[in-house]
Amino acid sequence: MAVSRRTSRDIRSESRLDVLHVLLSQGETTRNEIARTTGLSPATVATVVGELLVEGIVVETKVTVGRIGRPTATLAMNPDRGRVVGIDVAETYVRAELFDTALTQIALVDVERDEHLLDPDSVVEAIGSALDRVLEQGGVDRRDVLGVGVSLPGLVQAPAGVSVLVPNWTWHTVELDRLRERVGLPLVIDNPLKVIATAELWLGRGRSHSSLVTVNLGTGVGAAIVLEGRILRGATNLAGEWGHSLLALDGRGCRCGRRGCVEAYVGAPGIRQTLREIAPDHPLLALDSQRDFIEAMAGAADGPEHDAAVDGTIARTAWYLGSALADLVAVVNPEVVTLTGWTAWALGDRLLPATREHLRDQAPGTAGADVELGVSTIGGSTVSTGIAVIALERFLADAGLLTSRTPIAL
Amino acid sequence: MAVSRRTSRDIRSESRLDVLHVLLSQGETTRNEIARTTGLSPATVATVVGELLVEGIVVETKVTVGRIGRPTATLAMNPDRGRVVGIDVAETYVRAELFDTALTQIALVDVERDEHLLDPDSVVEAIGSALDRVLEQGGVDRRDVLGVGVSLPGLVQAPAGVSVLVPNWTWHTVELDRLRERVGLPLVIDNPLKVIATAELWLGRGRSHSSLVTVNLGTGVGAAIVLEGRILRGATNLAGEWGHSLLALDGRGCRCGRRGCVEAYVGAPGIRQTLREIAPDHPLLALDSQRDFIEAMAGAADGPEHDAAVDGTIARTAWYLGSALADLVAVVNPEVVTLTGWTAWALGDRLLPATREHLRDQAPGTAGADVELGVSTIGGSTVSTGIAVIALERFLADAGLLTSRTPIAL
Ligand SMILES: [Zn+2]
Ligand SMILES: [Zn+2]
Repeated sequence: MAVSRRTSRDIRSESRLDVLHVLLSQGETTRNEIARTTGLSPATVATVVGELLVEGIVVETKVTVGRIGRPTATLAMNPDRGRVVGIDVAETYVRAELFDTALTQIALVDVERDEHLLDPDSVVEAIGSALDRVLEQGGVDRRDVLGVGVSLPGLVQAPAGVSVLVPNWTWHTVELDRLRERVGLPLVIDNPLKVIATAELWLGRGRSHSSLVTVNLGTGVGAAIVLEGRILRGATNLAGEWGHSLLALDGRGCRCGRRGCVEAYVGAPGIRQTLREIAPDHPLLALDSQRDFIEAMAGAADGPEHDAAVDGTIARTAWYLGSALADLVAVVNPEVVTLTGWTAWALGDRLLPATREHLRDQAPGTAGADVELGVSTIGGSTVSTGIAVIALERFLADAGLLTSRTPIAL
Repeated sequence: MAVSRRTSRDIRSESRLDVLHVLLSQGETTRNEIARTTGLSPATVATVVGELLVEGIVVETKVTVGRIGRPTATLAMNPDRGRVVGIDVAETYVRAELFDTALTQIALVDVERDEHLLDPDSVVEAIGSALDRVLEQGGVDRRDVLGVGVSLPGLVQAPAGVSVLVPNWTWHTVELDRLRERVGLPLVIDNPLKVIATAELWLGRGRSHSSLVTVNLGTGVGAAIVLEGRILRGATNLAGEWGHSLLALDGRGCRCGRRGCVEAYVGAPGIRQTLREIAPDHPLLALDSQRDFIEAMAGAADGPEHDAAVDGTIARTAWYLGSALADLVAVVNPEVVTLTGWTAWALGDRLLPATREHLRDQAPGTAGADVELGVSTIGGSTVSTGIAVIALERFLADAGLLTSRTPIAL
């Protein structure tokens, strides 16, 4: 018989993770407060806090002496333990954020990118120079950086011979080697969806539900599935690739090579394709950038003149999205689904009513009616924050404080 | 902030569950062996075993005194703690199995059912009389029965106002009340897929992998998703309803009311429909029972005469199945997928090679190539065993030994 899934080492690691979550989301707190919030015993909390104090991860900020009982120490993350950097590589920009170990932002750099320039050299160089500039802006010595996280769009596949499979990119192991060399610091990579979900978990959002799915709607489409406070990564970090599950057998071609994927219908190019099918000569089709197109769609829908082709496209997109979400709900049956990404922010309010209806009609039993569906209030910067959190998580794992099965280090 | 997901009570419960898994799968074992297998500390194992001894769940069967060191006690489940019954309600039969608390079978009763007779009265009565007969056959007093589990096809939805949504059945809360009254003993219900997965977990199969999906292919189609040794139930026990996720938008009508579900293509009636599309006058279409039809398909495929329509149907079914499995793999990214149910047993060997190829081609990255896909070696009786295990699990939960978020008690 194989080894059991959960060792006492894992349980200690989970206790530490719970304590760190509280410290990061509360700012300042006490041992009693941590015990109350986590459900851990006071003895366990005392042990864990002791370990984190020894490692310099946590500091006692003040001690209050009450009239009776023992003095109470206020605890916080130690901001000066080191620095972490989170880099969000999107189709159109690279954003680098520098944080202290309490996850307070120290510096931020945005580098615009030509979305058609996808060769490894220019991507690696954009990442490298964003890193250099954010460190310079923050006045930080590279020796103080505990880790750098890079969020790359597309599939980030584990294990051995980690590969990044970005549709239209032609990345191979050699590019990752080049990236590691250019960064020259402890490096983790992951994809934006898992990164957003990590940010929600660590920074306190989404902790009120035991199951939550974050759905990203942009050029690409995907889902991050959070179960019992942990991101479902799957055997090779590919869980959540709902964007490349089928909506229509033998349907529209998808940039992944498959036909009929969800992404080919509800990704920005898919929405453009729907408009093209309804009105082949529509003026919005002339817009070059995906994001400009989606924002112009939202503008047209809200504008004073009724545009039947735009309304029809939104109605069809809601049908596609509701049907595809019904599949996700059928398989995972989560409590909450939040939509994120710029398509969700631009068109979410227009899409939601009909999407909810289709979801309710098509999901099994009352699962579609029971699920809480809404647009996430999280902004774009969450990706750089989230990947910095993953870099911090990796550092803690390397220090032996977490049994990390999660972040992919290069 | 909400309460944390994992309390120390849950951790104690998981330790007990781990110990019980070892006891059930090993038969006889020792404290040291349990510690080695589970990864729990010897102190934790000693505590847990002590609690189980006090409750009479476990007994010491013999004590071996070595030349040095302390005497070693052999431990086993206490078969005489009570009796549990598992009842498998399928379209065509009802099977009741009686077990002792070490899960050794004491008696077995099979009752044939007319698959067209789906009214609540006849189903409740078939369950009730199967129960009566198995207790009689086993010479067991009803007062010694700790619990009865009933596996019902279709959706078994939680919580409050648990409902059973069987396609074509018209079950409501009132039928469940009637069922509870007829059984007159502590009762749990679940659907066959979750039951099969539970049996795999408790009885030692599937414990070598941290993520596993069991796919059922019969009249109905569904999946049970096992992650880190636990069945994914979802917010309302509906997780795994992959059979009613889309294969083809606006495709074939499904008995759930939706169009284009996976089940409408790879369920037995769906396979029949494919043959009808290829050869509308094929003689096998005259067979009335779904199961006879599938077995005749297997016979024709293996027969001496080449039947192009049957071969074509199998090829198309493999394409449908591979595509649908690619979706499941895209979302969950499991290590292992096993096919079960009578369609899998009859046609699995014929379907597998092409299904594997389609899965490999269509799943993201190398997830389709990495997943271990095969036909399960588990036979039909696993459903009655599995639901008996769930009844036992519920009894242990009621005794305060497990924090059971899982079985649905009526
Ligand atoms: Zn695709
Ligand atoms: Zn269906």
